[in-house]
Amino acid sequence: MRSSILLLAALAGCSSRTDATKTKPTQGLAAMMKARGLSEADVKAALMTYTPSGKHDEYVVFASGGHSGQVLVIGVPSMRILKYIGVFTPEPWQGWGFDESSKAVLAEGKKGGKDLTWADTHHPALSETNGDYDGQYLFINDKANARVAVIDLKDFTTKQIVSTDLITNDHGATMVTPNTDYVIESAQYPTPLGGGYADPKDLKDKYRGAVVFWKFDRAKGRIDKSASFAIELPPYTQDIADAGKLASDGYAFINSINTELAYGGDLEGNPPMESGYSQHDMDYLHIVNWKKAEALVAQGKFQQIGDMRVIPLATAAAENVVVFAPEPKSPHGVDVAPDGNDIIVSGKLDTHTTIYSFSKIKALIDKGQFASKDAYGFNVLDFKSTIRGQVEVGLGPLHSQFDDQGNVYTSLFLESAVAKWSLKDLKLEDKLPVHYNIGHLLAAEGDTVHPDGKYLIAMNKWALDRYQKVGPLLPQNFQLIDLTGEKMQLLYDMPIPLGEPHYAQMIKADKLHPIDVYAPGSDPITDVKSPNAVEGGKERIERRPDGVHVYMTAIRSHFTPDIVRVKQGDTVHFHLTNLEQAYDATHGFALDAYNVNLSLEPGESDDVTFVADRAGVFPLYCTEFCSALHLEMAGYFVVEPK
Amino acid sequence: MRSSILLLAALAGCSSRTDATKTKPTQGLAAMMKARGLSEADVKAALMTYTPSGKHDEYVVFASGGHSGQVLVIGVPSMRILKYIGVFTPEPWQGWGFDESSKAVLAEGKKGGKDLTWADTHHPALSETNGDYDGQYLFINDKANARVAVIDLKDFTTKQIVSTDLITNDHGATMVTPNTDYVIESAQYPTPLGGGYADPKDLKDKYRGAVVFWKFDRAKGRIDKSASFAIELPPYTQDIADAGKLASDGYAFINSINTELAYGGDLEGNPPMESGYSQHDMDYLHIVNWKKAEALVAQGKFQQIGDMRVIPLATAAAENVVVFAPEPKSPHGVDVAPDGNDIIVSGKLDTHTTIYSFSKIKALIDKGQFASKDAYGFNVLDFKSTIRGQVEVGLGPLHSQFDDQGNVYTSLFLESAVAKWSLKDLKLEDKLPVHYNIGHLLAAEGDTVHPDGKYLIAMNKWALDRYQKVGPLLPQNFQLIDLTGEKMQLLYDMPIPLGEPHYAQMIKADKLHPIDVYAPGSDPITDVKSPNAVEGGKERIERRPDGVHVYMTAIRSHFTPDIVRVKQGDTVHFHLTNLEQAYDATHGFALDAYNVNLSLEPGESDDVTFVADRAGVFPLYCTEFCSALHLEMAGYFVVEPK
Repeated sequence: MRSSILLLAALAGCSSRTDATKTKPTQGLAAMMKARGLSEADVKAALMTYTPSGKHDEYVVFASGGHSGQVLVIGVPSMRILKYIGVFTPEPWQGWGFDESSKAVLAEGKKGGKDLTWADTHHPALSETNGDYDGQYLFINDKANARVAVIDLKDFTTKQIVSTDLITNDHGATMVTPNTDYVIESAQYPTPLGGGYADPKDLKDKYRGAVVFWKFDRAKGRIDKSASFAIELPPYTQDIADAGKLASDGYAFINSINTELAYGGDLEGNPPMESGYSQHDMDYLHIVNWKKAEALVAQGKFQQIGDMRVIPLATAAAENVVVFAPEPKSPHGVDVAPDGNDIIVSGKLDTHTTIYSFSKIKALIDKGQFASKDAYGFNVLDFKSTIRGQVEVGLGPLHSQFDDQGNVYTSLFLESAVAKWSLKDLKLEDKLPVHYNIGHLLAAEGDTVHPDGKYLIAMNKWALDRYQKVGPLLPQNFQLIDLTGEKMQLLYDMPIPLGEPHYAQMIKADKLHPIDVYAPGSDPITDVKSPNAVEGGKERIERRPDGVHVYMTAIRSHFTPDIVRVKQGDTVHFHLTNLEQAYDATHGFALDAYNVNLSLEPGESDDVTFVADRAGVFPLYCTEFCSALHLEMAGYFVVEPK
Repeated sequence: MRSSILLLAALAGCSSRTDATKTKPTQGLAAMMKARGLSEADVKAALMTYTPSGKHDEYVVFASGGHSGQVLVIGVPSMRILKYIGVFTPEPWQGWGFDESSKAVLAEGKKGGKDLTWADTHHPALSETNGDYDGQYLFINDKANARVAVIDLKDFTTKQIVSTDLITNDHGATMVTPNTDYVIESAQYPTPLGGGYADPKDLKDKYRGAVVFWKFDRAKGRIDKSASFAIELPPYTQDIADAGKLASDGYAFINSINTELAYGGDLEGNPPMESGYSQHDMDYLHIVNWKKAEALVAQGKFQQIGDMRVIPLATAAAENVVVFAPEPKSPHGVDVAPDGNDIIVSGKLDTHTTIYSFSKIKALIDKGQFASKDAYGFNVLDFKSTIRGQVEVGLGPLHSQFDDQGNVYTSLFLESAVAKWSLKDLKLEDKLPVHYNIGHLLAAEGDTVHPDGKYLIAMNKWALDRYQKVGPLLPQNFQLIDLTGEKMQLLYDMPIPLGEPHYAQMIKADKLHPIDVYAPGSDPITDVKSPNAVEGGKERIERRPDGVHVYMTAIRSHFTPDIVRVKQGDTVHFHLTNLEQAYDATHGFALDAYNVNLSLEPGESDDVTFVADRAGVFPLYCTEFCSALHLEMAGYFVVEPK
C-alpha cells in the first residue's frame, strides 16, 4: 500500500519524498481531472463505483423492465446491466418463446384465450425467509393483464406465469409475505369481477377491486393456484401494496386513490379521471388481515368466482379481514418499516409523508374502536388515532425506503429529489436533487427486516440532458447514491436502454448461487432431464406417424446430423441437446426462413416443432460464437417439394 | 485547479503544504483504494472512464445485438448502454411492432410469406460521406434471413427492411461504399439462387453465392430496390466483406471459406462441415469491381432472377467483375486500411495476418496477369504477387482495426488477445490479453478514411469469471482499451445484458444530431404528418362502414376520450396523437387483454386496428410515468356483448 500512496501523491503533484517525483505532473491525477472535467467529488465517485476487470459487484439489483415485459439484473456499485431476463415478452437471444417449453410458459400467460406478447412489469419481489431476501426466487407482475411470473434464481429463468380471470389489471403486485407463503397481487382499475360487462356508470355497484394471495410452494418452486385465494374489495382503485413483517406479520397494506368512484368519461360530460380521482381529502389505506382471510377460506367462507376462491365483500367487512384507515389525498407509496410497526404512506398531492403505527391500528381493531363505516360496510379507523405523525418532506412524495440507521428515504417526484428523514424523531435530515422526476427508489436489502444502508438508487423517469441524445424516446435514469455519510452523495448516472423500470430490489450478491451449467439433457423449464434428450452417438432422424423426429446434438463445432431431409408438408420435431458441460459454452440453433432460434446453454435440451410448408434449402447454423470454427457449425435443412 | 491538486495531495496522504492535512487519511484516496481493492492502474482507468452526471460521452457505439435482432447504442468512454433500437424483433417498450406503421416495417421483412420475429444482426454500417461517418443513417443485416434494415439517426428509428428472394442467408453485410451509394450484402451458406430446391450433393452445380449491391437513395432515406443489383458467385461460402475506399474506391472485397465445396452430411458418411471446410491451404479473396458491375447492369448485361437483377457467373468471370486472390486457409476478417491500399486478411487457422496491396492487385488485373482460373472460370491472381507481406500476430487472428498513427489492431480469438502491429513496417508492437474469446474489435471512427485512435473495444464472446454469476447464459464482454499510450491499456469491462453483438462502429458523438420531438402529429415511419393525426379539441369517435374510428389525444394527464364504447365484433381503429411538444414527455398507451401497447413520443401519431372480439370492460392507461397523476391517466374500453 505504501508504494500506492507514494505514487498517488506523485500523481497528485505533491512535494517530493521519493523518486516518484519523476512522474510527469501532466500525466498525473490533476491533469486527468482537468482533461476530463472531473471535480473532487467526481474522483471520489469514480473510485467508489469503478469495478476492475474480474472483480465482482457487491450487490445485485433486480429491476422490472416496465413495458419491456422483462427483468433487468444490475450490478452495484458498477451499475452495469448483467442481464435482461425474458419474462412475459418473447426474446430471441435467450430463445425465450422460441422453443416448446418456453412457449408453454408464455402460453400459461394467455388471457381470455388471447396471446399476449408484452407486459407492463412493475414490482419485482425477491423471495424471503424470516423477512430477509434468501436469493432463491423472484416474482414479478404484469400490470396490463394481471399476471404474475415466477423466476428461479438458480438459472435466472422464468418458470411459471399465473393469472386469474377474477381481475383484469393489477398494481399492488408483487410483494411477498415474510416467508414467501404468499405472493400478493391487488387489482388496480376496478372492473366487473370475473371479466363480465357492465357500464362504467354502474361502477359503484358492479365494479370491484380485489387482492389475490397466491400460495407459493417453495419445494416445487411454483405457485399453487388451487391453494390461492382472493378478497373482494370496493372499487376504489387500489394502488400499491406492501406485506407486513415482524410486528405486522400476517397483514398486508394497500393504498387506494379513488374513493370518489370516478370513472372518466371526458367526452361524456364528466371530468377526466385525473380530476375525478382527486376530489376527496382522504382515501383509504386498506389494512388486510391475510392470516384471518386464510383461516376463513379454510372454513369454506368463500365464493368461487371463475377460477378463484374469493372472500366476498360483506364477509371481508363483517369479519374485519379488511379495515380502512384514512390517508391523505391521492396516496401512492405504502412502505412497511423494517420493524413492521411503522407504515409510511406518501400522498402525492401532499407535501407530507404520514407515519402510521401498526400497534395503534392493531389496538383499535382489537378493541373494535372504529370511527365510521364506508359505503360498503367496511370499518374505518380514526385517522389521527392511527398515526405516529407526519413529516413535511417536500413536493410530490411517492415511495420510501430504509437504511440500517433508522433513516427513511422518500422520493419526491415533483421536486426531483430524495428526502432523508429520521424514523425516530420524524425530522427531515437531508435532501438531494436527482435528475429528473423520480418514481420509486430502492436501498440495499431495503424491503427486508435488516436493510443494509450503504447504497440507494433513485429511479428517475426523465433523463432530459443527462446523456447524449438518442432521439425522442429517452432512456430512464438510475442514479446511485452513497448513504454512508451524513449527507447523501450522488455517485453515478446509469441510463436504462430498454424498458421503463418501475421498481427494483437490491440483494447482497453473495446470497445468489446460480448454477453454471445444466445437468446433461435438462429441460430448463421442468428442471429435469428431457424425455427427448439426445446422447452423443445416438443422433438420428426417425419418421413416425406424427412427423419427422430429428434427434440432434450440438458440440464445438458441429451439429449431428448436419443435413436434415424432409418432404414439404411434413411436421418436423427437432430435439436438440447441447452436449457441452463447460461454463459459457452456449450454442444457438437458427434455421433460416422458419423463424427458429434456440439458445442451448451447456447441458440444455430443447424441442421445436413446425410444419415444413415451404420447399427449398435452408441453412441451419449456430448463432453463438462458440469456437474458432463457429461459422462452420452449420448444415442444411432440405425440404423436397411435394 | 490548484485547490484540486492540494486536496488530492491530501487525499493521497502526502506531506503538508496546506491545511488540507486536516483531511483524515482514512477518508483519502489510499483508503478508498484499499477498501475497494483498486490498483493504480484501476484508479487511472476509473478516471478515464467515469462520466459525471450531466456530462456526455465523447463517442457513441452502434453495436449489433446479434440474435436479439436489435441495435445497441453505447456511450464511450463510460460504456453505458444508452438505448436498444428495435429493428427486426418486436419490442414493446418502444411500441415496435405494436402500431400499424412499425408493424408494416416488420411486414416488409417477411420472407416467403412468413412472419419472422427475430433476426441475427451482424454488421452495422454507419452512412459515409467521402469515406467518413456522417451520422445520418445506420444499416444492419440479418444473417439468418438475408435482410437489410435502414435506421434513421434523426430519430434512432428503423424505417425500412429490404430483402431479395435471391439469397437465403447473408454474412458480408452491411458495409457501405464511401458515399453510401450502395449497401453491400453478400450471401453466406450457398443455396440455389432464388430459393429453389436442389440436393446438397449438387452443391457445386446448383448452389451459388451472390453479392447484392443495394442502392441507397439518401434524399429519401430509403434503399431503392429497383436500382439495386447483384452478382452471382461460386458456392464457396462467402464470408465477411469490406468496401474499398480512396485507392480502392469502386471495389469491394469478400472472403470465402469453402473452396472445398463441402456441404456437411455427418450422418450420411461425410465429414462434418467444420472439417470439410478446412482441407485446402488457400481459399479465395473475391475482388469485386462494383463500378464495372454497375456499368454492365446499366448496359443490360444482367439476368432477372426472381426480384433481383443479377450479373451471371460467366459474365462476372469473363468481364473480371470478380477476380480471385488466394488467401491463407479459413480466412475470416477482411479489412481495408484507411488509405484504401492495404487490405488485411486474417486466416483464423493461421498465426499470420496477410497484407494485400491493392495497387499490386490492380496492376496485375489491368495487365491481365493471372496465375490460373478456378473451376467456374474466374481469374485467379498469384498469391505472392498480390501481397505486401505477412505478420505473425498470434493464434486465431480474426479482424483488424486501425488508428490514426498507422497501427493495426488484430483480434486473436484462440489467444484471447489483441495484437498491435505497424502497417508501415509490418512489425508486431504490443499484445494485450482480453477476457475471453474475442471476435470483432472496433476503434474510434475505425472504418473511415480518418480513424481517430484513442479507444478500442474488444468484443469478447465469453465472460466466464468477469461478472457476478447470472445462470448458464452469460453476458458477452466488451472491454474498452486505451490507445493513447505506447502500450494498450485495459480501461473497462462492460457486460452486454441482451444479445450477442457481432460487430459495432464508433462515431464521434458530435456528429449525431437527433431531433428532440416529432413535429405535431407525425408518423415516425413516414416522417410526415399522419392523415389520422388528431388535434386537441377535435377528439371524437366515429362509426364508419369499416368500423369504429377513435380519434384520441394524450396529454398530461389524460386521454380524450377516456371511455370508448364499442360492440363486440366491431373492428376498432384507434388513432392516437401525443399533443406534447416537451422533450421526454412520452406517453404510452396500453389496452388490457387486447395486446395493445404503443409508445407515443412527443408529437407522435400512431394507429392500431383490431377486432373487439371479447366483450367486457378493459382498462386503458398510460404506461410511461409522465406526471404526478400518471396513474390517473387511464380510462375504459367498454365492449358491449353481442
